Amino acid sequence: MPKIDADRLIRDLRDLASIGAYRTGVHRPTYSAADMDGRRWLIERMRAAGLEPSIDGIGNVLGRSAGSGPKLLLGSHVETQNHAGWLDGALGVVFGLEVFRAFVGDASCAGLGIDVIAFADEEGHFGGFLGSRSFIGALDEAEIDRCANKYDGTGLRDALLSAGLAGLPRVVMEPGRYSGYLEAHIEQGAVLEAAGEKIGVVTAIVGSRQHRIVFNGQQNHAGTTPMALRRDAGMALVRLAAAIGERFSDIAGPATVWTIGRITLEPGAPSIVPGRAEMLFQFRDTDPAILDALSTELDRLVANVEKGPCGVELHRVGTSTPTLMDADLQVALSQAAERHAPGRHRKMPSGAGHDAQILARAMPVAMLFVPSIGGISHHHDENTSDADIVLGCAVLADAAADILKGVPR
Amino acid sequence: MPKIDADRLIRDLRDLASIGAYRTGVHRPTYSAADMDGRRWLIERMRAAGLEPSIDGIGNVLGRSAGSGPKLLLGSHVETQNHAGWLDGALGVVFGLEVFRAFVGDASCAGLGIDVIAFADEEGHFGGFLGSRSFIGALDEAEIDRCANKYDGTGLRDALLSAGLAGLPRVVMEPGRYSGYLEAHIEQGAVLEAAGEKIGVVTAIVGSRQHRIVFNGQQNHAGTTPMALRRDAGMALVRLAAAIGERFSDIAGPATVWTIGRITLEPGAPSIVPGRAEMLFQFRDTDPAILDALSTELDRLVANVEKGPCGVELHRVGTSTPTLMDADLQVALSQAAERHAPGRHRKMPSGAGHDAQILARAMPVAMLFVPSIGGISHHHDENTSDADIVLGCAVLADAAADILKGVPR
Repeated sequence: MPKIDADRLIRDLRDLASIGAYRTGVHRPTYSAADMDGRRWLIERMRAAGLEPSIDGIGNVLGRSAGSGPKLLLGSHVETQNHAGWLDGALGVVFGLEVFRAFVGDASCAGLGIDVIAFADEEGHFGGFLGSRSFIGALDEAEIDRCANKYDGTGLRDALLSAGLAGLPRVVMEPGRYSGYLEAHIEQGAVLEAAGEKIGVVTAIVGSRQHRIVFNGQQNHAGTTPMALRRDAGMALVRLAAAIGERFSDIAGPATVWTIGRITLEPGAPSIVPGRAEMLFQFRDTDPAILDALSTELDRLVANVEKGPCGVELHRVGTSTPTLMDADLQVALSQAAERHAPGRHRKMPSGAGHDAQILARAMPVAMLFVPSIGGISHHHDENTSDADIVLGCAVLADAAADILKGVPR
Repeated sequence: MPKIDADRLIRDLRDLASIGAYRTGVHRPTYSAADMDGRRWLIERMRAAGLEPSIDGIGNVLGRSAGSGPKLLLGSHVETQNHAGWLDGALGVVFGLEVFRAFVGDASCAGLGIDVIAFADEEGHFGGFLGSRSFIGALDEAEIDRCANKYDGTGLRDALLSAGLAGLPRVVMEPGRYSGYLEAHIEQGAVLEAAGEKIGVVTAIVGSRQHRIVFNGQQNHAGTTPMALRRDAGMALVRLAAAIGERFSDIAGPATVWTIGRITLEPGAPSIVPGRAEMLFQFRDTDPAILDALSTELDRLVANVEKGPCGVELHRVGTSTPTLMDADLQVALSQAAERHAPGRHRKMPSGAGHDAQILARAMPVAMLFVPSIGGISHHHDENTSDADIVLGCAVLADAAADILKGVPR
């Protein structure tokens, strides 16, 4: 069995976290100086480990192993959300690096091929899964022309130029090279912690439907406009939001989640009846039939609002379809988890999106979760115990070895 | 009967509106250069009319008429909300000036005393009714030390210094001088227009209770946090807001109004369960018993929220008590309205606050409304037809003459 070097693994994660350090977390937005420093650090660590590293025109860092034969691709991403945590995508990339190094040091793994990848902009500062889509050939130049930073408006072309990536070729996966892609990640929720478990084997990545719902009423003085004459856009919003809260519980599956993340009333003054209101609303599930049923119900609730005094517009601003993880790869992860943490692992959906859902279009994929302390992520308090990190990496290494060795499942 | 000069009245209103003109409206925030220009313009118009004008240490402009005998005080305010309308307070001040001029030109009104006043900061850029409270002796120096501009934080002392008012004495009303205060104002609502009426005789200015309600939950990832583990501050807010919408209609009186003017979810991102939420909520009525009943119901609804997973804090951030208008003055206004617009006037509450509610602590007060086109106010589209403006001023002049002559009612 390949042997993980716990000190080396944690030291690399800490080293990478020192680049763009922010409080107890990290601020390394895509293509920022800190992000590019992180990618250069990764290239050096790959080279030192014996991989052949390269960075391409979208910022993907790929470390290729020598030798022929089928290979597994391991990785995730290294940029972070703004002012976020130290693990998130970095964990899966450094796990890949450590698994490669463990294979090198283990005779039983001689000749088993591991490539390691850090995709660019999984976090979506400029677009949606730019790096992984580029890698499978699903990102065209016209889209790159259109993309811009969602916080400061910088065009993607300008950002690539500043980062020194303009003019580099984009690397598309070599056909037939990979028998699968494995991505380790922090859970970003509290399910494992609440159950005292150590490993989550992901069954599917949820699909999501995102909406911007706009309510149009009439702005008025809040003291002088009788209730009967009002067209209060804010109250129309509140009624829909409350109805969603009541109705969705009846239709949802056990793992469905739905969230109103933002509400805005305009003009937003204490003594003015809101003339316009807006909410951002999304729901997620692994089952397309449940997503469809929820969409139908949302349409019905919105139509009810239209019977009131305010206009309403339902904008569908984003959709992703659920992605099933490969059954054989899941079995390999579960068997390895059972060896390292008997009875303390579970199958579970991923509520967040990951590069694995893009790679699934091109090869079998699977994912492994380690516990998130307090369920916190995208925040500088994000953390996982060192012991759980090391355990997760050992499970990943074992599973990768089994898969490449063709151990019967 | 005193005769209003319609051209002179409209011309003065237009002249004043040209100072700080903004689109079709006016931007004259308290103590701004435009506001001080407006006050200087008023002083000159008062002097030209034969009043003895002065400006005091809080910015109140008072035009005193000569002669002994009881006097009526007429006025309102001349500063505006930001980027607001041309009438609002200016109407009541210029009405006072025109009524004084009409009296001067009418033998039957010889010796009837009219003082005209423009109070400072009724609109509350720095405080609450600073000018009218100063005038009745209800504003102390310590409060002036504390007040600051609510938009840019400029201290009131600094603003008074910049405006050239620092060091001027503040003028408190001369005891026994006034038999009452009359304030004309635009309705700021659409009740008169909807009924095809010309004059509103105000029965009472509503009291209001203003609240900031804060909900404390747990910020989480919207994809990875199961519904059962959430403490969603936004949904707690939505449930309270919906409950208010349902319950308040049962308890409210016919003229009660209630308004949620602002909702904020934090951090306000599409894929994050809000950890904190806040709403601004107010209600108004002329009946203290109804206000008390609504406060009790709000307490009950907030206590229900506390049974859920989120904390809630109810902050009472402002209270004003209802103010009754003087019965005799109301009769004088109604009788004058009936002469000028038979059957096209009504008694009605004022849903907005006005300087009259402060003056009522010191003397009998009453208010007259003219129609607002489309019910619009505090917006550059605010308007009233010239004919309705002139009619309103004629009603005010007749009523003032009757009151000062002691016409039996």
